[in-house]
Amino acid sequence: MIDETHDPGLESWVDSANRPGCDFPIQNLPLGVFRTPDNGQPRIGTAIGDFVLDASEWIRGETLNGYMALAQQERREIRRQLSKALAKGSERRELIPQASCEMLLPAAIGDYTDFYASIHHATNVGSMFRPDNPLLPNYKHLPVAYHGRSSTIVVSGTPVQRPSGQLGAGVFGASKELDYELELGIFLGPGNRLGEPVAIEAASEQIAGVCLLNDWSARDIQRWEYQPLGPFLAKNFATSVSPWLITWEALAPFRVPPVEHDTPVLPYLQSQSETALDITLEVWLRAAGMPRATRISSSHVRDLYWTVPQMIAHHSSNGCALRPGDLLGSGTVSGPEKSNRGCLLELTWKGAEPLELAPGIVRRFLENGDEVVFSGYCERDGFRRIGFGSCSGMIFPGPQ
Amino acid sequence: MIDETHDPGLESWVDSANRPGCDFPIQNLPLGVFRTPDNGQPRIGTAIGDFVLDASEWIRGETLNGYMALAQQERREIRRQLSKALAKGSERRELIPQASCEMLLPAAIGDYTDFYASIHHATNVGSMFRPDNPLLPNYKHLPVAYHGRSSTIVVSGTPVQRPSGQLGAGVFGASKELDYELELGIFLGPGNRLGEPVAIEAASEQIAGVCLLNDWSARDIQRWEYQPLGPFLAKNFATSVSPWLITWEALAPFRVPPVEHDTPVLPYLQSQSETALDITLEVWLRAAGMPRATRISSSHVRDLYWTVPQMIAHHSSNGCALRPGDLLGSGTVSGPEKSNRGCLLELTWKGAEPLELAPGIVRRFLENGDEVVFSGYCERDGFRRIGFGSCSGMIFPGPQ
Repeated sequence: MIDETHDPGLESWVDSANRPGCDFPIQNLPLGVFRTPDNGQPRIGTAIGDFVLDASEWIRGETLNGYMALAQQERREIRRQLSKALAKGSERRELIPQASCEMLLPAAIGDYTDFYASIHHATNVGSMFRPDNPLLPNYKHLPVAYHGRSSTIVVSGTPVQRPSGQLGAGVFGASKELDYELELGIFLGPGNRLGEPVAIEAASEQIAGVCLLNDWSARDIQRWEYQPLGPFLAKNFATSVSPWLITWEALAPFRVPPVEHDTPVLPYLQSQSETALDITLEVWLRAAGMPRATRISSSHVRDLYWTVPQMIAHHSSNGCALRPGDLLGSGTVSGPEKSNRGCLLELTWKGAEPLELAPGIVRRFLENGDEVVFSGYCERDGFRRIGFGSCSGMIFPGPQ
Repeated sequence: MIDETHDPGLESWVDSANRPGCDFPIQNLPLGVFRTPDNGQPRIGTAIGDFVLDASEWIRGETLNGYMALAQQERREIRRQLSKALAKGSERRELIPQASCEMLLPAAIGDYTDFYASIHHATNVGSMFRPDNPLLPNYKHLPVAYHGRSSTIVVSGTPVQRPSGQLGAGVFGASKELDYELELGIFLGPGNRLGEPVAIEAASEQIAGVCLLNDWSARDIQRWEYQPLGPFLAKNFATSVSPWLITWEALAPFRVPPVEHDTPVLPYLQSQSETALDITLEVWLRAAGMPRATRISSSHVRDLYWTVPQMIAHHSSNGCALRPGDLLGSGTVSGPEKSNRGCLLELTWKGAEPLELAPGIVRRFLENGDEVVFSGYCERDGFRRIGFGSCSGMIFPGPQ
């Protein structure tokens, strides 16, 4: 629902929030968990311009799980109150510079499920692993997914240790094919009871908000281990998420019709609503020793073959219980062009077409000291641009 | 370590604990979480004979996560104290009949990982799904596993709703091939830090205890969805566990050498210790309308190709963090004989060889009203038999 909180003319008494191109104008109001050097207690805040406003007055707790458990209209009411408190004309409050905040994970994540919703990614990767059979017969009938690991989800900025593992029969060592995967993360709430599926038209009420997600992947470990039960150690050494929850309410102006399907789907996956999201994602890579990052790809969440409501309806179609704070990953967001490929596996075509970042600096996969930074934003004529902040991680070698 | 708490001559002042064949003699002392009709507060207790002793004096909390986080020697000390308090000659304490206790999940389960450690199961199932290629090339090199769902793990006795799902292209309905899988569950603790693998010789310190686990599976959903990322909705509608944690300390007399491997494993999976467990598991099926259950199979945990320490060393070999309360499943425990097959898929060979439970009562897969009951025990000359209690679930139809 688009309301007065989305009014592009609305300004904040926080000047930096009114700057064009700012990720966190008053139309965004993302939620996160932070602490400061002089107060180690985790608190909930909202990002506004270059600052954080302590939001404990509206949302108590050390995680956003309680917020995610709220009904949609309660979450909408909190947004209205935050908007009012930060609007020009309201009384100034104490702010904390973002630079002096340590951001923590937004929620205690119960279960993490990773989808495979980009048909461009599935087709690219499928053609490498199964040249004769890139897109499997089930792909256009259901949103393929698998369960990932919760214990190793880390917040943006956490160093990522290069994993070791079996690279083939009798071979153990540090992965030589470490990769990122550009994904949208979706935090769920309030959840459903075991045995009671979520109907697709009610699925958006289960979306608390979204973030950037990096599904770090060790391709050599994956190739050897993944049959017959799917990826395991190739993925569960680390998954990074951006700290700011972009709420479902903030995304209201950026909902668009989903992509056309050439294969009909079953009724439980059919929706009449504008269920896709118009979000642009970017990958920036700062290779070890380089002074700054280069943008190496960008892609669009609206190009996903499966929408988030379809993921939720499918996930719960067997009665599986979803809980507040559960996290979904969209799967790598790739698009039709080479510049839209959301991981190095695709961008360098399994290393066959190395990426030249600067004269003499090429990458097939990630090297130690490389830093990967994701960013994301929504733009639409007649609305303020909102940004996602960033999701970054630098690669470190493991112990010898 | 075998100590005085394992002495087969030790008797309890609780008479029912001294009865031959009792699951819960004083040599067992399993831990669980219970509440009673007159006290809804979840408490930790130990099973002794037909009773439960409130163990809050030794272990506080509403779950066993705190206990699981303790170092092995602290857990051993708690066992010594419980043994002393319940030994003949000690002062009698108040007991609660097991029949008046509601048992709850033993822990708040963070992550649940399911292995595939029975080579007999993997060979049987592999030959049905991939007749030309039953055992994949990685099987003898690493313990294959995948992540399962935590939110749908339920305690024994919880009714299990038959899941609906896609049974093929354009077909949605209630699963027609609902099955159980007989597994050993392993609760972990105290865990390791992200990035720091657990060495195999230290892995047993990470085992808090074991239980029975039923990995309910919908074979028709699984067949259609599982490629390329593994099982998802076919498994995550329910997983049942028995309520009593059989502690690692109680299992001390029942450790045996692992099965011989014909293919050498990498050093991080090699151990000099007696790391296999001699546990017998049984499956009992009470078909709808039958007065009592029939034992339809039994198998032995010692026949697993991969041991629990190997699972832990492999799981953490990439630095993956394990936490107190995380749960591992062994995968279906099958053996070399038909009578050792741990699921109906194998027992009826995909339905081709129906199981005759009584004249005129046959099963290919589970029907509504069927109740599946697992039991388990350890026996060894010179020691008291210890039992696991049971893990049961009855199948109910879903909503229309």
